[in-house]
Amino acid sequence: MNTANQRLFNQTNKESKLVEQEVRRDDIGFGTKLTDSHSRLINQDGTFNIVRVNSSLWDRLNVYNRLITMGWIQFLSWLLVFYVTANTLFAEVYMLAGADSLKAADDKVLYSPFWKCFFFSSQTLTTVGYGHISPDSFLTSSIAAFESMMGLLAFALATGLLYGRFSRPMAHIRFSKQAVFAPYLDVNGWMFRIINTRANQLINLEVSVSMSRVEPKSDGALSRKYYNLSLERNKVSFFPTNWTLVHPITEHSPLYGCTPEDLEQSDTEFLVSVQALDDTFMQNVHTRFSYRYNEVKWAQKFRPMFDGSEQTPVRLDLDKLDETEEAPLN
Amino acid sequence: MNTANQRLFNQTNKESKLVEQEVRRDDIGFGTKLTDSHSRLINQDGTFNIVRVNSSLWDRLNVYNRLITMGWIQFLSWLLVFYVTANTLFAEVYMLAGADSLKAADDKVLYSPFWKCFFFSSQTLTTVGYGHISPDSFLTSSIAAFESMMGLLAFALATGLLYGRFSRPMAHIRFSKQAVFAPYLDVNGWMFRIINTRANQLINLEVSVSMSRVEPKSDGALSRKYYNLSLERNKVSFFPTNWTLVHPITEHSPLYGCTPEDLEQSDTEFLVSVQALDDTFMQNVHTRFSYRYNEVKWAQKFRPMFDGSEQTPVRLDLDKLDETEEAPLN
Amino acid sequence: MNTANQRLFNQTNKESKLVEQEVRRDDIGFGTKLTDSHSRLINQDGTFNIVRVNSSLWDRLNVYNRLITMGWIQFLSWLLVFYVTANTLFAEVYMLAGADSLKAADDKVLYSPFWKCFFFSSQTLTTVGYGHISPDSFLTSSIAAFESMMGLLAFALATGLLYGRFSRPMAHIRFSKQAVFAPYLDVNGWMFRIINTRANQLINLEVSVSMSRVEPKSDGALSRKYYNLSLERNKVSFFPTNWTLVHPITEHSPLYGCTPEDLEQSDTEFLVSVQALDDTFMQNVHTRFSYRYNEVKWAQKFRPMFDGSEQTPVRLDLDKLDETEEAPLN
Amino acid sequence: MNTANQRLFNQTNKESKLVEQEVRRDDIGFGTKLTDSHSRLINQDGTFNIVRVNSSLWDRLNVYNRLITMGWIQFLSWLLVFYVTANTLFAEVYMLAGADSLKAADDKVLYSPFWKCFFFSSQTLTTVGYGHISPDSFLTSSIAAFESMMGLLAFALATGLLYGRFSRPMAHIRFSKQAVFAPYLDVNGWMFRIINTRANQLINLEVSVSMSRVEPKSDGALSRKYYNLSLERNKVSFFPTNWTLVHPITEHSPLYGCTPEDLEQSDTEFLVSVQALDDTFMQNVHTRFSYRYNEVKWAQKFRPMFDGSEQTPVRLDLDKLDETEEAPLN
Repeated sequence: MNTANQRLFNQTNKESKLVEQEVRRDDIGFGTKLTDSHSRLINQDGTFNIVRVNSSLWDRLNVYNRLITMGWIQFLSWLLVFYVTANTLFAEVYMLAGADSLKAADDKVLYSPFWKCFFFSSQTLTTVGYGHISPDSFLTSSIAAFESMMGLLAFALATGLLYGRFSRPMAHIRFSKQAVFAPYLDVNGWMFRIINTRANQLINLEVSVSMSRVEPKSDGALSRKYYNLSLERNKVSFFPTNWTLVHPITEHSPLYGCTPEDLEQSDTEFLVSVQALDDTFMQNVHTRFSYRYNEVKWAQKFRPMFDGSEQTPVRLDLDKLDETEEAPLN
Repeated sequence: MNTANQRLFNQTNKESKLVEQEVRRDDIGFGTKLTDSHSRLINQDGTFNIVRVNSSLWDRLNVYNRLITMGWIQFLSWLLVFYVTANTLFAEVYMLAGADSLKAADDKVLYSPFWKCFFFSSQTLTTVGYGHISPDSFLTSSIAAFESMMGLLAFALATGLLYGRFSRPMAHIRFSKQAVFAPYLDVNGWMFRIINTRANQLINLEVSVSMSRVEPKSDGALSRKYYNLSLERNKVSFFPTNWTLVHPITEHSPLYGCTPEDLEQSDTEFLVSVQALDDTFMQNVHTRFSYRYNEVKWAQKFRPMFDGSEQTPVRLDLDKLDETEEAPLN
Repeated sequence: MNTANQRLFNQTNKESKLVEQEVRRDDIGFGTKLTDSHSRLINQDGTFNIVRVNSSLWDRLNVYNRLITMGWIQFLSWLLVFYVTANTLFAEVYMLAGADSLKAADDKVLYSPFWKCFFFSSQTLTTVGYGHISPDSFLTSSIAAFESMMGLLAFALATGLLYGRFSRPMAHIRFSKQAVFAPYLDVNGWMFRIINTRANQLINLEVSVSMSRVEPKSDGALSRKYYNLSLERNKVSFFPTNWTLVHPITEHSPLYGCTPEDLEQSDTEFLVSVQALDDTFMQNVHTRFSYRYNEVKWAQKFRPMFDGSEQTPVRLDLDKLDETEEAPLN
Repeated sequence: MNTANQRLFNQTNKESKLVEQEVRRDDIGFGTKLTDSHSRLINQDGTFNIVRVNSSLWDRLNVYNRLITMGWIQFLSWLLVFYVTANTLFAEVYMLAGADSLKAADDKVLYSPFWKCFFFSSQTLTTVGYGHISPDSFLTSSIAAFESMMGLLAFALATGLLYGRFSRPMAHIRFSKQAVFAPYLDVNGWMFRIINTRANQLINLEVSVSMSRVEPKSDGALSRKYYNLSLERNKVSFFPTNWTLVHPITEHSPLYGCTPEDLEQSDTEFLVSVQALDDTFMQNVHTRFSYRYNEVKWAQKFRPMFDGSEQTPVRLDLDKLDETEEAPLN
């Protein structure tokens, strides 16, 4: 250890103003180094625009998470591939152990030794076990005993994943494709709109919006800064209809006095995070979205989503989510 | 982009009083547009009185949520329908592949080719696989291998749903059918009463009550407003007996000075939301209820639910939940 | 509606001091009516001392909760009873449908028709399906197809319950059998001690203690009152060893100046509630305990639970949990 | 009860300054007695350095927790051992009941009575039930009926555990092997660095750091004290890249003015606790880590983990997590 450093802290750094400033700085977890203006931070599907290198094979595979989040067709295809592969492997093992020692009720021409082993394997793996093919030696009996156990375990994983995917709580929230700058009371506001596309209820919704932009530091170097945008209302108990979220642009807003050009030059991105409780099993759900500067319309306001008819109950038209109309700003 | 709007925010809208007012306004998520006085917002079963149009087929089906929340008879019927349909379909496939290649131990008259295929399918789908009928060609063996895999997956969904329904945490809370205006200490109070109908414990109960009514705005147009009603006590650790929730009507209450006619004309609805922890697995449970103006009794108070006997332990009579008696208001 | 009540609230009940008092009163959910001094509120196993009458059959059965919380022997016995009963019922059905139409490989004397049906049923219900007995008519094939489906569903419930019970998160916290009044710093304290009996970690423990006692109201009638007892420390991040919880008896304590006789006469009960996170799956666990006045020792302090040896790592002797020694009070 | 103690609390211990001090003392749950400087409190794998004696057999086995947390190879070996043992036991039972009453399709030399019973048992336990061996007496039929039921229950536990292990939410957070004392703004800071090694998102991370060290009390006896270290930022919404946690060493820090020798003599240990939400199923995850005095480098700072290339998207090199370079302290 460097003895020259033993003097450490003997200086009287009492209170540090820089530390206090730093503590108050908003940062949602991306840091200040991401100043490349050609890429967005959060993709519109909620994933992050970061690549990991040198992670371990296991971490890169990330098996469980991947099997839960991949598409349904991909998932079912993997199941089928796995099933056929497992049967093929076990069929080869039975072939090695002697296909003759699998006794079939009667041997049609069709039953080539390989396919006999293959179908015996499938009947063992799924524990269907018709018995028209049966193991007839110590070796094949042992392999079959092992395979049926493996089959139970493997299908437990497969069916667990299947049900996990099926029952996974998700916020079926659709965001308006574009955010808008619209007049709001006697000022203007930055707004976007969300709906719950499903009939199952989301309760206790909470929304937070951060704005991220690249700003020059005092030494001229670019640095990414984050601002939490206060919302007119960031929490509701129920979410039965649509909800327009409004950030009022008053003097306190970091957007105060901004022009469209400012947004573009500073590579502005609006990061939205929504948390809620799914009413069915009272599970937390979470979803992310982002609007970049070119996904924000100026001087437009959202049109109502109720279809205007006098019918009861009230009818909410989901197709109108993205509809806006001109509205001169204040 | 409209260059005329580039002047945006150059005006000095410093602090906006309207924005401050709006931020303070209570809103539980319904918005201000629902002023139709012929319908209630929350049905007494806790669902919302809103219809969605133009939602996607998948969102309208909402399969998982629907299968969890439908009645038991409906659920079991769907299972049976699905089982019979799947067997019929696979039976047709085996018929196409040649019913002869399913070898049965012996062919009684009763075994029409279709029913042989049908029962073979059912024995494969459930993996019971007696083997008195067995696949005897490459094609039928392959179909059977596929069907047994499908059977495992499909029954995993069915049994997962079955157990999910069975173990779903629910707040078995019964609300008194009517709320009352009753004398409370030296003022009056708006009250309702709840009980836990089950012996399993609910802990850390939290209740919130919102009142919603239609009020004329300054320009005369009707607008729905929301008020959070403060309760004398909105949180308890345990819930072993009944609990009467009381909103004291002091000067601060939006109900101060109200008459029954006022409630009716303003289409008043009381929205109740209860959250708790089910002690069995420490899961969150949530339930909603609402009282409309015509479900509120005036000058009545709840009668005690203990049966008055001197027995030990204390006996709580659930049938007395709705019992009230006249009580002149203060 | 009583028109005489329309005058409601026209009086000027501005602020009510009684309401303010009532709001500040501690109540953990038992109410003020339970003043019978012969029974405790919370049994030492954490259940409540209340009986419900007139609850519905379904609520009284409370099937799921009961199957989860009953003892293991009882649970497994119910499974066995259910399995034998189901097989007997289906055996009767097969008998009605004609035992002859269940074809057995060969009919030993031993195979009485009933037992043939019974064992066929068990082989169908568990989907083991050897096939040495097989359905040989349309009717029995249909029943078997139905039974195998029922078997899958019923065993899904049984195994779901089994695993639910096995994996149910529980706080394996043992409470000292007695609480003590002991000297604490320069005052005295009411103390009890807890340990985690398992090696799996509980984190973020939070303990709250309420004292309940019967007190005369201003009119002389008895009423049960509740006091939250402040603890010297009510929250810890980790719980690797024992933890002695201390309520310091300063002037602010409702126990200040109490004698053992006071505790007895006022039927004092200390209600303890512990919440924590089980580290294995990060699930919430909760446990309750209570000490009545006769389970509190005076002028005793707990002896250390470390076995005093100089060994590493530190050894915690669980048998010493209840050991106390005389300690004169301050 | 000792009547001499009835005078209890009659003295006027009004406010106790000692009690107030004690209440303010930081303690994360280890107590003050662990002053042995040769052992750490938290092992680097997050377990605690404590041994329990005299716990009950059941508590020591701690079956469920152990089966969930043991290694995969160990777990699968236990499954295999259990499977073979169960089959052996049932095989013995069938032997006792008479191996002859298990009828095999044809008896090859290979089929010794024991192995016939053994393989029949395995085919029953897994419900594969080929049927080429089948029970042919009342006794063996009954045992087989019982075994198939046991098989379903036992495999339900095994597969439940398997899936529980597979789907168990874990914080795949890697900590830098060493913490550092590095210059930070105009003061110095104690720092460590973490990364998420997986692509699945952790959100709402919260980190807390406690420092524990042995200090002499006023009477000279050693006592372990705990300090909560304030962090420049202890909460972020997202965790897509690396995160360097900084405790600024200002006058308020218990590390202010410390030398490496101080840390060693006082057996200083830094305890880190991280909580987060796994985005996949919105489950809480938690992880612990600790740095002892000899795992802290002086006058070193972490090097950036971005690989510096101008590529898009940003590339994070996980191998650089532990890289530090000399940096003279302020």
